[in-house]
This record gives sequence, structure tokens and C-alpha cells, in this order.
Amino acid sequence: MSGTLDSALETAIASAAQGGPPRLALALEHAVFPGGARVRPRLSLAVAHACGNGAPALALGAATAIELLHCASLVHDDLPCFDDAATRRGKPSVHRAFGQPLAVLAGDALIVMAFETLGRAAAEAPSRLAPMVVTLARAVGAADGLVAGQAWESEPSVPLDAYHQAKTGSLFSAATQLGAMAAGSDPTPWRHMGELLGGAYQVADDLLDAVAADGGKPTRRDEALNRPNAVARLGIETALDHLNRLVAQAVDSIPACPGRESLAALVLQIAQRLVPEPLRKSAA
Amino acid sequence: MSGTLDSALETAIASAAQGGPPRLALALEHAVFPGGARVRPRLSLAVAHACGNGAPALALGAATAIELLHCASLVHDDLPCFDDAATRRGKPSVHRAFGQPLAVLAGDALIVMAFETLGRAAAEAPSRLAPMVVTLARAVGAADGLVAGQAWESEPSVPLDAYHQAKTGSLFSAATQLGAMAAGSDPTPWRHMGELLGGAYQVADDLLDAVAADGGKPTRRDEALNRPNAVARLGIETALDHLNRLVAQAVDSIPACPGRESLAALVLQIAQRLVPEPLRKSAA
Repeated sequence: MSGTLDSALETAIASAAQGGPPRLALALEHAVFPGGARVRPRLSLAVAHACGNGAPALALGAATAIELLHCASLVHDDLPCFDDAATRRGKPSVHRAFGQPLAVLAGDALIVMAFETLGRAAAEAPSRLAPMVVTLARAVGAADGLVAGQAWESEPSVPLDAYHQAKTGSLFSAATQLGAMAAGSDPTPWRHMGELLGGAYQVADDLLDAVAADGGKPTRRDEALNRPNAVARLGIETALDHLNRLVAQAVDSIPACPGRESLAALVLQIAQRLVPEPLRKSAA
Repeated sequence: MSGTLDSALETAIASAAQGGPPRLALALEHAVFPGGARVRPRLSLAVAHACGNGAPALALGAATAIELLHCASLVHDDLPCFDDAATRRGKPSVHRAFGQPLAVLAGDALIVMAFETLGRAAAEAPSRLAPMVVTLARAVGAADGLVAGQAWESEPSVPLDAYHQAKTGSLFSAATQLGAMAAGSDPTPWRHMGELLGGAYQVADDLLDAVAADGGKPTRRDEALNRPNAVARLGIETALDHLNRLVAQAVDSIPACPGRESLAALVLQIAQRLVPEPLRKSAA
């Protein structure tokens, strides 16, 4: 499945950048490959599959769009005016490798490319597109999407739940909803499941920040940047319990659908790998 | 018509930002109001009207989306790593007023908002949406859209025609095409007209840069930034002739449609105002 996804991402970049400025195309490749765990698009495809997946090309387009938006947010979040991250996924961040102008533009291009990819994929089921575009846009938008999450860091006071929901929950919840929508199912019951998994992922990220290096991201960055962190607030053991509870709730919240059981198994498998290596024993 | 447009822009921002970070919402307002001439969305609405405008809400959504993308490009182009512009439309640029983090995020949010607005407007004619999303994305994308135009400035050598087409022609041509598409017409014959008007607008902008202040944008910036400029290349008189020829060609290229004559009149009216004030006599 991840081979299909990587090849869809490759096609999206090639199609969107062909004939354009060559260094920009290189920056786009650098931003998207090699990927992280591709958790969000895998989740989206798994939900589409569990729902009976009536339109596989649309589901793949939606999953690709979600990953492109995730990559866009990493490129912009790494900029000097935000995290000023020198590395990402074990190599130089985009602005360190290509300079700030191309990092800003690569992020912009990835956002645009996400919508182009979704639009192209809709040929299979054009009447499903409009609500999918709106759901995807909200997930990264200024009210409670990724942009809002990052922008809360520029406010004098930050409502913690809204911050986490925007910063992580929003794209996970778009992943489950778009998977259902691509398959022609009602997205409403899938929203909560995505939010719960996003919450679990956020706690896992906080644990990672607190205890270990992931081969690329510098650790204790939240502390350095004075950002809210569940581990700092709860301690490691309580944060781990919280993570496990969120995953269990996410599994329980999977709506009735043809592939419910195999989806539950996949979610548990993804969740297990969320726990940072040094903590896996105590989480078992 | 511009009242309708401004109110659609206001609604788009309110709907996209409500409940989100308050300073981000202020930055979005600052980026979009007060507007410039709103040439691109007015052109798009005029084309939809000339085509018989079967779906006025969709045409308005497309025009709004085009203006939001234009505003997004201004916010990002003004950033210190590009033009480092202190002012825009006679007031501080977004990054001067709100800081770089919110300027990057406001640009991102405006891009996303454009697609949300188009997606919402498609309720009226859902089957028209997919090609409109793709056309809009290409117009701002990494191959030959706005992002490509800005990114050419980071390349060691710049193909001049591709640069101008990407930087200005692309969004004008999206404006004419989306107007036609919203009305259910074939966009193909409208593409060239948009490109010609974009070319005229680019020459007008070069003239403005060379001869006058527009009450906001600092002049001779192209020269300072060593950017291609038609006036520097051709001289003022030849550039003016070139502008007038492009406008005449644009008018000639308007496809057969119910409102061809009134559209031609509007294009000439817009074009007349393109010529910088001190040069209008010699252009008459």
C-alpha cells in the first residue's frame, strides 16, 4: 500500500511541477521523500477500504492530498520564523537545503498540489468532490485546521484543547472522513475516530519529544519553544496511559462497516508503533 | 458589482476564520481589505456574465477564490525573504503589521480559503467543480502558476516569457476560464484572452514601477531587485504601444458569446485605467 502511495505522491509532484523552475521541483521532492510513517494517508485508505471502497482512485487521491498537506505544514513549521529546525527526517530541512524563498514557495505549492490532486482524482465520482474539498480545506484552515494550530502560537493565550485539535486532530479527522467520503459513505461517524487517533498521535509526539531522538527531529524542542506538551504536564507514565486509552477509544468508535475488524487491527498496529522505542515495554 | 465581491470576500474570511486565533483573523482582514482594483475577479464575473451566467453563485465563488489567491501571493511576495516590502496598498505589509509567522500563515490560510470558497459555491452545479479546482490550482501552481513565477527568481537563469506568463498571465487566464466554466461554457477559447490581458497588466505594472508611485507600492523596485521589466527593456513609448496592442488583441480574441459587446467595453474601460496617470495623455 505504501508503494502505491509513494508512487501517487511522485506522480502528483511530477504532474504539478513539470516544466516549472527546476530548483523548486527539487525542493518539492526533498519535502515529500523519503517520507515518515505516512500514518494519515494510510489511515485514510484503510477507512475507504473498510467502507467498501467504491472509488479507489478517489480514495488514493484524497490520501495523497492529505499527505501533501502534512508535508506542506512541516516545511513551513520548520522555517526560521517558527521552529527554525535545521533537520527533518534525518536530513536538512527544506529551507536549510534550498533557502527560505524556495521553502516558503514549496509549502505553498504543496498546498495547491493537494487540491489539484483531489480535483483530478474526482473524475471517478465527480459528485463527491465538493464536500471533500471543503472538509480538506477546513482541516488545514484558519478556524480549527493546521494553520490555526500554528497560529495559536502567536496568540497571547492558547486554549490547549483547541490548539491540539487544530495542530494534530484536524488532519487525522480529515483522513478518516475523506476515506469514508471517497467510498460514498457518510463521514459524520468517522470524525470522532480521527480526532481520538490524532489525540493519541499528539501524546506520542510529546513522549518522543521528551524521551528520545527519532533520527531527525531534535528533542525537547517543545520545552525550548515553551510549547504545551502532555508529558511535561502529566509525566511519562500518565501520558502513556492516556495514549493507550485514546487508542482503545478510537478502536471502539469505529462505525459499523464491512471491514470493521481489519481496520481495528490496523489501528492497533499503527498505535503500537506510535510509542517511542524506549517506552514500548512499559506500554505493552 | 464590487460591493457584492467585497461582501463575498468578507463572508469567506468570516466563515473560514471564525473561532480561530483572533490575530490571524485580523491579519486575513488586513491582507484582503481595502482591496486594489480587484481586476481579476471583476474580469471573471464579467466573462461569466457574457457567457449567460447560468450559475451566478458559482461564478461569484470562483471570482472570490481568484482574489483570495491574488491576496495570498501579495502577502508572501512581500515577505523579507522576497521583496521585503514595508508597505502595500498604502498601509504596512502584513508581516510589518503582524510579524512574519502570521504573514506566512495568513498567506497559507488564504490559499486554503480559496479552495474552500470554490468548493462551497459548487453546491449550485457540483459537476462543474472538478475541472475548476484543477484550473485554479494550475494557475497558482509550481509548473506555470504564481508559485512558479516567484520561484523563477531563485533560479540561475530565467526564461522571460515563462516568467511573465506564470507571474501575471496565469491568474488572468484562470479568471477568464473559470468565468466561462462557472457558466457552463467551454473554457478553452477564453484562455488566450486572459493571457493577453495578463500581459497588458504586466506591462502596465512595469510602467508604474518605472514612472510613478501608486500610493503604496515603492517604485523602481524591479530595478533594485534586478527583476525583468518591459520598460527597462523597451523604453516608455514602446512599452505603451505594446500595452495598447495587447489590449486590442485581447478584445479581438473575445469568443462569440451572448454578452460579447458589453464585455469588450468593460475590458477597454479596465485597460484605460491600467495606464499610469502621468502617461494617460500619450496613451489616448
